[in-house]
Amino acid sequence: MPRTLSLRCIGLSHRRCRCLLSTLAREEPARPLVHTLVPGPRSLELARELQEVSEGRTVQFFHDPHKSFGNYVADVDGNLLLDAFCFIASLPLGYNHPNLVEAAQSPAWLPHLAQRPALGYSAPPEWVHTLRTKILSVAPQGLANVQMTCGCGASAVENALKAAFIRKRALERGDVNPTTAELDSCMRNSEPGSPNSMAVVSFEHAFHGRLFGSLSTTRSKSIHKVDIPAFGNWPVLPFPKDEQDEARCLDLVDKTLSEQRVAALIVEPILSEGGDLHASPAFFRGLRELTRHYQVAMVCDEVQTGVGATGRFWAHEHWSEGLEKTGQGVGTGAAELAPDMVTFAKKMQASGFFFKPEFLPPQAFRIYSTWSGDPLRALQASVIIDTIVADHLVERVHSVGDYLIHALADLNHPLVERIRGRGTFIAFDLPSPAQRDHLLGEMRNQGVLVGSSGDKTVRLRPALIFDKHHADILLDILARVLRHMP
Amino acid sequence: MPRTLSLRCIGLSHRRCRCLLSTLAREEPARPLVHTLVPGPRSLELARELQEVSEGRTVQFFHDPHKSFGNYVADVDGNLLLDAFCFIASLPLGYNHPNLVEAAQSPAWLPHLAQRPALGYSAPPEWVHTLRTKILSVAPQGLANVQMTCGCGASAVENALKAAFIRKRALERGDVNPTTAELDSCMRNSEPGSPNSMAVVSFEHAFHGRLFGSLSTTRSKSIHKVDIPAFGNWPVLPFPKDEQDEARCLDLVDKTLSEQRVAALIVEPILSEGGDLHASPAFFRGLRELTRHYQVAMVCDEVQTGVGATGRFWAHEHWSEGLEKTGQGVGTGAAELAPDMVTFAKKMQASGFFFKPEFLPPQAFRIYSTWSGDPLRALQASVIIDTIVADHLVERVHSVGDYLIHALADLNHPLVERIRGRGTFIAFDLPSPAQRDHLLGEMRNQGVLVGSSGDKTVRLRPALIFDKHHADILLDILARVLRHMP
Repeated sequence: MPRTLSLRCIGLSHRRCRCLLSTLAREEPARPLVHTLVPGPRSLELARELQEVSEGRTVQFFHDPHKSFGNYVADVDGNLLLDAFCFIASLPLGYNHPNLVEAAQSPAWLPHLAQRPALGYSAPPEWVHTLRTKILSVAPQGLANVQMTCGCGASAVENALKAAFIRKRALERGDVNPTTAELDSCMRNSEPGSPNSMAVVSFEHAFHGRLFGSLSTTRSKSIHKVDIPAFGNWPVLPFPKDEQDEARCLDLVDKTLSEQRVAALIVEPILSEGGDLHASPAFFRGLRELTRHYQVAMVCDEVQTGVGATGRFWAHEHWSEGLEKTGQGVGTGAAELAPDMVTFAKKMQASGFFFKPEFLPPQAFRIYSTWSGDPLRALQASVIIDTIVADHLVERVHSVGDYLIHALADLNHPLVERIRGRGTFIAFDLPSPAQRDHLLGEMRNQGVLVGSSGDKTVRLRPALIFDKHHADILLDILARVLRHMP
Repeated sequence: MPRTLSLRCIGLSHRRCRCLLSTLAREEPARPLVHTLVPGPRSLELARELQEVSEGRTVQFFHDPHKSFGNYVADVDGNLLLDAFCFIASLPLGYNHPNLVEAAQSPAWLPHLAQRPALGYSAPPEWVHTLRTKILSVAPQGLANVQMTCGCGASAVENALKAAFIRKRALERGDVNPTTAELDSCMRNSEPGSPNSMAVVSFEHAFHGRLFGSLSTTRSKSIHKVDIPAFGNWPVLPFPKDEQDEARCLDLVDKTLSEQRVAALIVEPILSEGGDLHASPAFFRGLRELTRHYQVAMVCDEVQTGVGATGRFWAHEHWSEGLEKTGQGVGTGAAELAPDMVTFAKKMQASGFFFKPEFLPPQAFRIYSTWSGDPLRALQASVIIDTIVADHLVERVHSVGDYLIHALADLNHPLVERIRGRGTFIAFDLPSPAQRDHLLGEMRNQGVLVGSSGDKTVRLRPALIFDKHHADILLDILARVLRHMP
């Protein structure tokens, strides 16, 4: 794999401006190369400089984007690290993928670097083409519409929730047009125009973003939420501890949706920041049935799980599993299981949400912002989608993930608990938060980046080009670190 | 001006990859060229195609980014329009400015096109350099820190408000560390951890964004707000109708801040979406005094007013006006008048907010998102800042604006009411919404784009490179349209 990438890229550099490509790394090292602790002295100095004027405390290390390639990130202290965390699960094709480097030098991209259009006011024609033929080519079944949003996953989530409220209010009043009383009262943030008694349901340990609306649905860590006002009536429900707990949790959803005024239920297919919590496909099908019954929008938040990492393009595609075996599948097509909206960001490198046509606001200008997306990041998403398809990366993730999760189990190490995952979207626990943090630091110092989540979970979030030989290096260094755990 | 730009750009194309530059327009036409109604048939067809899969109803016309240059935008029907609206006030240097086109082809930009870093987790070293030497080179006096945000103005506003709540809660409890009861209760969106009785004050006709928190402070149009839950206890106060009304409005601010639990007051230096509502510098100084007295964060929202368009880099710099004359200025430096935080987006092409150091959250990870900004858009902002300084564009805006506003007054047309503005940030009213809309459509069909705001306001939002001869064309076509108004 690295050799192939490298040769293709060198080929490109002969055909196009060599001056540009030659500054970028074009080959992976055989193994991680580590000369200093990570963060090294240069990273620490830069973090200090950053902290003087902005936020430097959260930065784990500074990287050199020119010297990074494939699955390896170069830091500013000369280390080359095998990256199985990939900028918090947000790199689909690793670093400086040749397809992206080539496309980025296309004349088609250039004006979008010189100015950002206000896409809702005046789009370039390529925008229509990009949405129709690229972004929507990976739309979940049954969701034929897409709204791009401005920057991050939170903006995708919040606009999807807005669409849910607009739809639910139209259903409640039996009219898509708000009344005069509603139009007046909303200007004072008051009922009935501001439906403040209407709620969004989310789950314990969920993460959906950090702006005011999305943060009201996030229940991951208190430091994310404390001191910030939230919608106090938005209920939080338990996520199943295990398969036996699912019936109880579904009953609580049923009770909440029947008793309260709810516009949307939002859920991740795998609760990621919360510690990679899984539930069975049947649980999610249960949520789908209940939300449909109560006319509550089901928003599936695939910001972290989407774009191939679970061995399907969208993690919620796994929800049909088991239907064939039990015979329940008769008449239950993918479209019937589909959520009403699916949010994306991270590995798409652009944010937005897919939705069913009934969630298009009946009036214009209700979901809108100046930029309403970024055509450059959408072009980048197009290349990512094309590459995933052409290189069969979802299938590769499936097979590499299968290899990796079995190899982790084969380590059979007493400190490695609850190994779980789909595709390469894999996690395991250490017995304590302190041991987990120690393991992460030691692995980093030995040249492998993995992430943390929940209280004591290690999460693997490699790029889709992570291969078996990368898995072997990760396993080798993990085993070495485990041998020396205190 | 257009000739100069053009020659410089051709010069560049000889030095660098001609293949790329040659696809972009490099010269302004002498006047608008209009062959069809705007939107023309091709735009209408594209809007229909877009509407099938996303939101096409809001698009006024489709533009060709390759054929647009300087102050002229090319549409897909072959028209060249003089643009005095500039993507909703978001283009600082017009279309395909040579400095941006050149910089965009620099090897330094290339890896940021191939992948977006998670800047809060691992930044490239250039990020520190960009913030310290470029973005902060235009920081308002007294605001030495900056937090970049992910995409749009709304994310800048919401993160600034979060910083205000975090600071105010620390002051209230006399401790930067939340209590156990707070950490527990916030996970249920409940007091005391979620300070739901604490508010943000905003003004009637204000616009601060459309996500849940920012939308709760927006009071521009009901269609922006209706059917979306809002923080019901966040007060809205009247903005002065005129200078005589300012004392009453300040009294109401005083009363509200003294009686309610308020973390922040947010205000635009000119209420832009609300119809370009101005108040005197003394009014804003009054707000500054009151917010300081009550330890309420004053957030100045410069998303639309910032970056030169008012004849100062930041519109709130005008707040010191008149102090010298009255002698009140003794000891009242710019730093004392400075708001606590200033948000930006639009013409910066990147979003974020400047803040005083006491608004840095005392703990890490409280204001954070995966991407936490976009290094590419920050590089673009750097070139914009350099160009504004090198070409003295703020001074130019001051003189062109002065010329334009006097020429508008000299039209002395009975339908043109309440001409007002600073720099080229100019507006006037028509007697009715219908007449305003008619005028906008006619001007567009004759090749000049201007914008609407409020009920019956026409707003001019040209780029900073808008020159006197562009103003003459605008005035000429405006006069012609006015002559034929029904």
